[in-house]
Amino acid sequence: MSKTISVVGAGLVGSLVSIYLAKKGYKVNIYERRSDMRKQSMSAGKSINLALSDRGWRGLKGVDIDGEIRKIAIPMYGRQIHHKDGSQNYQPYGKDDQAIYSVSRGEINKTLMTLAEQQENVKIYFNERCDKLDRKTNVLEFTNLENGKSQTVHSDLVFGADGAFSAVRLQMQLQSDRFDYNQFYIDASYKELTIPANPDGSFKLEKNALHIWPRGSYMMIALPNMDGSFTCTLFFEAEGPKSFESIKTKEDVIRFFEEDFPDALPLMPTLVEDFFANPTASLVTVKCKPWVWDNRIALIGDAAHAIVPFYGQGMNCGFEDCVVLNELIDKHQHNWPDILNEYQTLRKPDGDAIADLAHANFIEMRDKTADARFLLQKKIEARFSSKYPDKWIPLYSMVTYSPEIRYSTALKEGNRQQAIMDKIMAMEDIENRWDSEAVEKAILNLI
Amino acid sequence: MSKTISVVGAGLVGSLVSIYLAKKGYKVNIYERRSDMRKQSMSAGKSINLALSDRGWRGLKGVDIDGEIRKIAIPMYGRQIHHKDGSQNYQPYGKDDQAIYSVSRGEINKTLMTLAEQQENVKIYFNERCDKLDRKTNVLEFTNLENGKSQTVHSDLVFGADGAFSAVRLQMQLQSDRFDYNQFYIDASYKELTIPANPDGSFKLEKNALHIWPRGSYMMIALPNMDGSFTCTLFFEAEGPKSFESIKTKEDVIRFFEEDFPDALPLMPTLVEDFFANPTASLVTVKCKPWVWDNRIALIGDAAHAIVPFYGQGMNCGFEDCVVLNELIDKHQHNWPDILNEYQTLRKPDGDAIADLAHANFIEMRDKTADARFLLQKKIEARFSSKYPDKWIPLYSMVTYSPEIRYSTALKEGNRQQAIMDKIMAMEDIENRWDSEAVEKAILNLI
Repeated sequence: MSKTISVVGAGLVGSLVSIYLAKKGYKVNIYERRSDMRKQSMSAGKSINLALSDRGWRGLKGVDIDGEIRKIAIPMYGRQIHHKDGSQNYQPYGKDDQAIYSVSRGEINKTLMTLAEQQENVKIYFNERCDKLDRKTNVLEFTNLENGKSQTVHSDLVFGADGAFSAVRLQMQLQSDRFDYNQFYIDASYKELTIPANPDGSFKLEKNALHIWPRGSYMMIALPNMDGSFTCTLFFEAEGPKSFESIKTKEDVIRFFEEDFPDALPLMPTLVEDFFANPTASLVTVKCKPWVWDNRIALIGDAAHAIVPFYGQGMNCGFEDCVVLNELIDKHQHNWPDILNEYQTLRKPDGDAIADLAHANFIEMRDKTADARFLLQKKIEARFSSKYPDKWIPLYSMVTYSPEIRYSTALKEGNRQQAIMDKIMAMEDIENRWDSEAVEKAILNLI
Repeated sequence: MSKTISVVGAGLVGSLVSIYLAKKGYKVNIYERRSDMRKQSMSAGKSINLALSDRGWRGLKGVDIDGEIRKIAIPMYGRQIHHKDGSQNYQPYGKDDQAIYSVSRGEINKTLMTLAEQQENVKIYFNERCDKLDRKTNVLEFTNLENGKSQTVHSDLVFGADGAFSAVRLQMQLQSDRFDYNQFYIDASYKELTIPANPDGSFKLEKNALHIWPRGSYMMIALPNMDGSFTCTLFFEAEGPKSFESIKTKEDVIRFFEEDFPDALPLMPTLVEDFFANPTASLVTVKCKPWVWDNRIALIGDAAHAIVPFYGQGMNCGFEDCVVLNELIDKHQHNWPDILNEYQTLRKPDGDAIADLAHANFIEMRDKTADARFLLQKKIEARFSSKYPDKWIPLYSMVTYSPEIRYSTALKEGNRQQAIMDKIMAMEDIENRWDSEAVEKAILNLI
């Protein structure tokens, strides 16, 4: 019970898991490579918004900070689709008041850091770059990036919560036999842009929606901020004839937006400056195995399972890791070999599943949300689900609003549903009798 | 033309590519982490045999050392299958004198090193561990493991020929955006064992065959050596109820061999000592992309495409890399951006293909070589191929004896053939009419 735990990374998951561990009585030291973001202004093009949903809320509730975060969260009840011809349509995300919430990554992270430091047994050390973790001795080596000083740290347990390019994971790659490791990039990169608030602070677009401009092989999205602005993200091929690489001049930017995002262009007065000032960033997926070593080293959050952002589940999945770990500490009464063993057994399939779902949702968002047959299918599913809520929970709802359903179960169930819907969509004249009793019966027979 | 090239690694491919580059007029420095193997005796359990086949011979011919290697190579014309009940059968690898050749990895490597050093513009530096390759400056950093001294090396081009756990590749992983990297292990590990020669130096088993003891989820193989001995390799699950992990005592080893390899046991007087003295090694596959950076850094051999050994193509593929590179130097008249660009475009799909083929052949060797239906299928294919050599080259022959067919083409063609054979094998009473005209016609119709 008097174990000392080192957590590498004071990001969202590192901070949250530290709070959970502290509340269980452990002494926790967090080592963060960056300086304290609470003392700095956010850099341009990095004002990342996240979509917080039920799995994430559950993680925050477990340490009683859901109320505080709710104050800075904007509910989005559906997708507002912006077509190329300027027309729009709205697709609800779920039933009634089901929503995902736009929150600032920075704000959540700062709140979590402060809460962590309020635990008397948590301390955060900033500017500490992890240079090594010796598997044999469990000793961590850090270099302080402000003063250049090195230190070594011995602890009973080490959590690598240091993100997609985890230093802890790299050390395991270098020091372990039989470490399966896979990192791959999708063709699309992304760039953050902005739609500012009106002069009176009001929103230029519907506030309570996630806006999507689907354009086949690329898309733009926009999420609302508390100050009336929207943070836009353009997902676009990194290279090729029509890509970030091919947009070279101010005129290229304007022409691209005039053609593809005509309704957004007038809302974006700083578009050209932002386009060239903000970085173009890549989108990586990381899968690895194992996640735990020697009963005392474990990966958590993006370090274990970096995913693309298209299901809005990166943070939510990481928070769920913390919830599961917390439950396992109770279940196994602080027996760490058992805790870490079951943590990996439970979470690895779920991490793999959400990675696959997130990847598939990129295709759905950029491409299918503008497709009439896709929309019809969703309408049929929604109708059936509302009539038979016990028989059919749409995949999006399972992932987003049903934390009691594991990601791996949702993926399996979603594949089963898709096979059924493929048959339904092949029914003759489905466009005209989609809401008929015959279709309903056909689904009931296929379930 | 007066470019200086650094090659990291003096293994099989590093040595061979250096000879090719030297013959094209480049000044080549090779940096090898290990000490000079020509000055040392081989360590036990590391007397690895390789199966040299046509792609590899082509690589050796290109620098005129095929004759020298042929003196120490033992042709294997087929697989000698050893069943659990002690019975044996023989499966030819190809037609007539088509063979793969058992050679000692050490002997080939030593020969290649010596030939490299005979080029006046090649120098090998031993005991040099590559610590860094700075992408921005193209400067390599080495530490000499004998005297601890560091040195930095600037060169025009760098080849990472440093194997499955390439230091050069790791540097690119750490310094590149959008580097796709995948390493994964199969469940089986391996251990080398030995069947010594008879007192008179003769072979205890048929000399000119690759011996296989297929046992479903594991297997042993044996390749002949010049001294009359066989090097055996046991491929066996690393962990589990029946695995390397589960074999703990001398009695366990004996019982295992009595039960599974009864005809081999009496031929292996040092079995128990070897089993516990020799290391258990893992089997990794590595795929990555890109293979070239900045028109001046490239991976070659296992560093670019480590594969499992079950198609006997690891070295052969690496040698083929050298052949292709050599051809591209001519084609592009020493224009390195074009050479490296086409090298990657050509070889990456072939590297991926042989990785997949090697993985699939593990299943074939350990499992299907003992299966009557599989053997029947091979017999039908062989019969048809001998009658219509222009219409059907068996997959194994494409990979092993047809260097003019790219691995990626062989894989595609192999899949096409398998689809045809699935239909043929589903024909009624195929066991009795496999050599009938009806079957022959059916194949002709399906081609």
